[in-house]
Amino acid sequence: MPPDLFRALFTPRHVAIVGASDDSGKTTGRPVRFLQKHGFTGRITPVNANRDAVAGLPAVPSIIAASALDAPPIEHAFILTPQAAVAAAVENCIAADIRVATILAGGYADAGAEGQVAQQALVEHARAGGLRLLGPNSIGVVNTANGFCCTANAAFEVDRLLPGRLALVSQSGSMIGAVVSRAQAHGIGFGKLVSVGNEADLGLGDLGLMLAEDADTDAIVLFLETIRDVAALERFAEAAARLGKPVAALKLGRSDIGQEMAVSHTGAMMGSDRLADALLRDLGIVRLERFEALIEAAPLLVQARRHNVDGATPRPVAVVTTTGGGAALVVDQLGLYGIDVAGPSAALFTQLQAACPIPLRHGRVLDLTLAGVRYDVMSTVLRLLANSGEFSMVLTVVGSSAQFHPDLAVKPIIDSAASAAVPIAAFLTPAADESLLRLSAAGIPAFRTPETCAEAIIHALRPPHFRTLPAPAATVATATRPDNEAAALDLLGAGGLPTARRMLLPPGAAVKSAHGLSYPLVVKVVSADLPHKTEAGGVKLNIADADSLALALRDIAASVAKAAPGARLQGFMLQEMISGMAEVIVGFQRTALGDFVTVGAGGIHAEVLRDLAVRRAPVDSATAEAMIDELRIAPILKGSRRQMPADIPALARFIAGFSSLCAALDWIGEAEVNPLILRPAGEGVVAVDCLITAAEHEGSRHV
Amino acid sequence: MPPDLFRALFTPRHVAIVGASDDSGKTTGRPVRFLQKHGFTGRITPVNANRDAVAGLPAVPSIIAASALDAPPIEHAFILTPQAAVAAAVENCIAADIRVATILAGGYADAGAEGQVAQQALVEHARAGGLRLLGPNSIGVVNTANGFCCTANAAFEVDRLLPGRLALVSQSGSMIGAVVSRAQAHGIGFGKLVSVGNEADLGLGDLGLMLAEDADTDAIVLFLETIRDVAALERFAEAAARLGKPVAALKLGRSDIGQEMAVSHTGAMMGSDRLADALLRDLGIVRLERFEALIEAAPLLVQARRHNVDGATPRPVAVVTTTGGGAALVVDQLGLYGIDVAGPSAALFTQLQAACPIPLRHGRVLDLTLAGVRYDVMSTVLRLLANSGEFSMVLTVVGSSAQFHPDLAVKPIIDSAASAAVPIAAFLTPAADESLLRLSAAGIPAFRTPETCAEAIIHALRPPHFRTLPAPAATVATATRPDNEAAALDLLGAGGLPTARRMLLPPGAAVKSAHGLSYPLVVKVVSADLPHKTEAGGVKLNIADADSLALALRDIAASVAKAAPGARLQGFMLQEMISGMAEVIVGFQRTALGDFVTVGAGGIHAEVLRDLAVRRAPVDSATAEAMIDELRIAPILKGSRRQMPADIPALARFIAGFSSLCAALDWIGEAEVNPLILRPAGEGVVAVDCLITAAEHEGSRHV
Repeated sequence: MPPDLFRALFTPRHVAIVGASDDSGKTTGRPVRFLQKHGFTGRITPVNANRDAVAGLPAVPSIIAASALDAPPIEHAFILTPQAAVAAAVENCIAADIRVATILAGGYADAGAEGQVAQQALVEHARAGGLRLLGPNSIGVVNTANGFCCTANAAFEVDRLLPGRLALVSQSGSMIGAVVSRAQAHGIGFGKLVSVGNEADLGLGDLGLMLAEDADTDAIVLFLETIRDVAALERFAEAAARLGKPVAALKLGRSDIGQEMAVSHTGAMMGSDRLADALLRDLGIVRLERFEALIEAAPLLVQARRHNVDGATPRPVAVVTTTGGGAALVVDQLGLYGIDVAGPSAALFTQLQAACPIPLRHGRVLDLTLAGVRYDVMSTVLRLLANSGEFSMVLTVVGSSAQFHPDLAVKPIIDSAASAAVPIAAFLTPAADESLLRLSAAGIPAFRTPETCAEAIIHALRPPHFRTLPAPAATVATATRPDNEAAALDLLGAGGLPTARRMLLPPGAAVKSAHGLSYPLVVKVVSADLPHKTEAGGVKLNIADADSLALALRDIAASVAKAAPGARLQGFMLQEMISGMAEVIVGFQRTALGDFVTVGAGGIHAEVLRDLAVRRAPVDSATAEAMIDELRIAPILKGSRRQMPADIPALARFIAGFSSLCAALDWIGEAEVNPLILRPAGEGVVAVDCLITAAEHEGSRHV
Repeated sequence: MPPDLFRALFTPRHVAIVGASDDSGKTTGRPVRFLQKHGFTGRITPVNANRDAVAGLPAVPSIIAASALDAPPIEHAFILTPQAAVAAAVENCIAADIRVATILAGGYADAGAEGQVAQQALVEHARAGGLRLLGPNSIGVVNTANGFCCTANAAFEVDRLLPGRLALVSQSGSMIGAVVSRAQAHGIGFGKLVSVGNEADLGLGDLGLMLAEDADTDAIVLFLETIRDVAALERFAEAAARLGKPVAALKLGRSDIGQEMAVSHTGAMMGSDRLADALLRDLGIVRLERFEALIEAAPLLVQARRHNVDGATPRPVAVVTTTGGGAALVVDQLGLYGIDVAGPSAALFTQLQAACPIPLRHGRVLDLTLAGVRYDVMSTVLRLLANSGEFSMVLTVVGSSAQFHPDLAVKPIIDSAASAAVPIAAFLTPAADESLLRLSAAGIPAFRTPETCAEAIIHALRPPHFRTLPAPAATVATATRPDNEAAALDLLGAGGLPTARRMLLPPGAAVKSAHGLSYPLVVKVVSADLPHKTEAGGVKLNIADADSLALALRDIAASVAKAAPGARLQGFMLQEMISGMAEVIVGFQRTALGDFVTVGAGGIHAEVLRDLAVRRAPVDSATAEAMIDELRIAPILKGSRRQMPADIPALARFIAGFSSLCAALDWIGEAEVNPLILRPAGEGVVAVDCLITAAEHEGSRHV
């Protein structure tokens, strides 16, 4: 990202507030007031054709007039005018050679097709003129470091803005207020906050990338309603991963009605939440579940990154408390995420006891009871635990002392954290704002609820990693586009994937033998016009010999002729009947969010239980194995008392090869192998049935 | 519960604080100080052998001396002495004819077997002397109405205790502080709070019952680590249901390590969390998931009960907002619970528009944008929605105005709620303590997080109902205790349950026919010494004729003789082989938490997916149908495009009959029908295999 763009967005030497009102009660009166109140270090020029002054500052009648002032050049214009006047304002920004304009007005893509057209025209015009746009429908940009509080969001009414090294990019303007308000109450400061609005020009990915590369930003949190530009998001995520900056997102749309709401609110369309989930994870972006995690998680993620906690060497979490009940509360939540909580080793316990003036009890949690309120006890214990090498993290659970004696309660934590080899975090059981403020000010991750605490810890311990997609397979030279199941299997075979042995008989061919296939056989009618073959009597299983085969072919022809008289028969597929120990479904989808591969339990599991694992396609075998591990049926596939293990490496190779083949053939919209038969370890997997659908708009990767 | 006990616990005319310290920094200095600080209206007598005065009050050297004072009789003694002095203090309380003693000291059942013995002795002694005990290991009792703040919990250090009509019973003393602190910060007041400690005498159920019957209590919330006395809990729950008082519990132990923690913390043992979950639900007790729901849910549950919202006539929730992003956030959460959020009907929308001075947009959520901050707009909309008859509840989502203009933000909500036909609740997106306080003071359920808001709403809309257990079956007269599978099936048959047709052949019998059974048959060896019949070659399936049958019997005898030479053969079971469309498992368990019946998906579902529904046993057919509905495989059992429906009524009758039979036979510890074969609608169900295990301590319902 060009440095001048970053400067214009966050540290302009001169900003024009277009349509600024002198009435502090109005939304359009806020930006100038907030810039003044929070001590913006640059120059502010209100643009208002009807007044000489706004909020005590000299106003000019037009952007052109503003640019003619004897002042540093205007780098950023915040356009507050009604929609009807926006195009003219943009025109003037171009004429005045302004770098960035932020547009407050909505009524563009957020309001439907007509608005989408107007938005497109605005962007094209701006780009042609060298002007970048933030919004429309953006509530503004804030940089707390220099007081550039260039926003109409009411939350910035606060008397003092807490600075900080976190950044927020939000698709909802109003939620910036909710986040800042809660973060400030918690003592957590944000450095830069951006409302990206409709993302007509500068979007989530662009802003994220700039913030990832910003030396004053440690982590980026995102409030998302949709994902509009996957490629830009990927560039941002890659940079953040490379630079070691955690990215965490709260994305609406976990429920169906939530997804509908998010879409109707922004006018954007997107795929299923499950795909978004897989995308974020593959990009190394933590997906948060709870609203307050958007505020509380980032400090811990930053600490974990700083201390190189990354899941590679899993160690338990140590929990130290002055309140047994409070510790039990949070340990219960940690347990729900499968986080291991353990006490010190015998050697470490001896060390702890020797250093502590009170008798300790050895257990999963170190409960210091009331004695833990003593500075010497708590700080000694924390230091020994945090530097023992036995734990990935130390969590302190503090009781009433956090409410009534914040000094006593937080000092040992803050002092110990300074020299700790692992992150030290705190959960406070009472309402204890002052303690939260002090801990946050010292950079200690502190949590209001046991649920958010556990959520942050699981992501700190097992952060998602940015996954670079492997190159897709070289395109299969002989690949013709299959219009039926037999051809689809042929395509898989050409791509080197194992399929059941089979042959295609033309319609009407007389058959006296299995043509080299081994009985028992399956016979299926082949016809592009028959989506439901079984229902039409087009499938016969368990054919044991030549006589049965001849009979089956006659029966199928008769049934199909009766059930679907108009269907064109392309022939009959004879296939060796494969028996295995389990069935899975492997699927591929090309969507607006990118290409995805899915593996799921077969049979009723697929339909009802939705036991699926999803990744961006393609995947390599190692990622495919990780997908298999995520399935609830994984323990069954991996063998049990009653059953041999299935050939997991072969399954992983199949998923990888299939994902790669489908990704390479860009005319494929969807593909599904159902079932893929799993055989015992060493005996491989076999695709028995496959359906491939062409993308609606061929050649496009995103349909 | 005797009224004098209630009075002694919560409104004693005279309380003795035994072992009260004059040092306000000590735990034992707190109770007298808190009683004074919060204006206890009764008399306080500190008992301290070493001082004439404690906290400015005249002290007496002993309980006996206290009882001799010219004062109302001492009804309650709070014993703060170390454990070693407790027995003597209890002795003196008996001598002084005191009604209740609360014991602070731990080291009893909470500390292991030896402590358990001491505790038992203490209780027996007290009961014989007419003294009731609270604790040991209780941090005390609080009644905010009369300032009876008889506790050592540091949280009561606050300057002003908020009164209220909620009650809290907690098994964790320290968590009372956390709850009170957070509730007060939220403006939610508690009337009575009790730490039940080890529940040696007065327990959760006893206290709950008193509070359910208390005219000053509207709802009871519970912080639970375990469940010690199911019968007492049931009496309490029944009274609460009868009197229309919601009960909501946060119970630790949702995760395995959480359960371990809860147990080790209290020294009590309990069954799986799943059973506790079923128990609470059957008792009509809401089980809460999130810590803050313990504070925020009760006001909404009370409102819902008051407005007769009970799930019987499901109507959608209306959501009104001034912040689209905030509404989307909470609607997403509501959607995760399957809560229906809907906009007004066309007719109601016309009415709303006619009454509102601003243009409204019809949608799932009524987004009033900034105009919603106007009193007339918000109050008009709320009144019309809440009295329309279209909704079960109205949720308002308030943005920044809640932070900066609490007066404006909450007034229309409070005013509209006064005349609303359904509950009006609020979710505030920013940190807005003042608005929370005002809403709570006016009795409006208000929520800090979208997650807790949704959790409270689902329980308000679909509250669990107390279920009176049906009478178990009359005991089967012929029931002998089965020692093998054939006898177990016979017992089911004698109880009127459908089982596969079968016969038992004695060992060595010559067999030439199927003895009236229809082929194909299954043959199984019968032996109490062979738990794994299949592995020992003791089972043959698909026996088609008499010759195969004879062969099978020989083969089985030979295999078993080889695999388990010492096993005593009781014979062979010939059973008709049943084919069906699905299999389920039906189980029964007699546990410390009571008797439970389970239905679960068969096969791998049972082992890996844990697709189960659980209730207390016995159940009637209607409850059994509700259990079936809870299974993830329910849609499969109920039929689909591909499959006929199974005989659900027959399955429900089987579950009911089985639960009743097992509950009636009190020597049964566990029983499991696996599989129960489901046949198509109208064709019934058939038990094919059954295992019955005797309870370890026969005759006892709780083993």
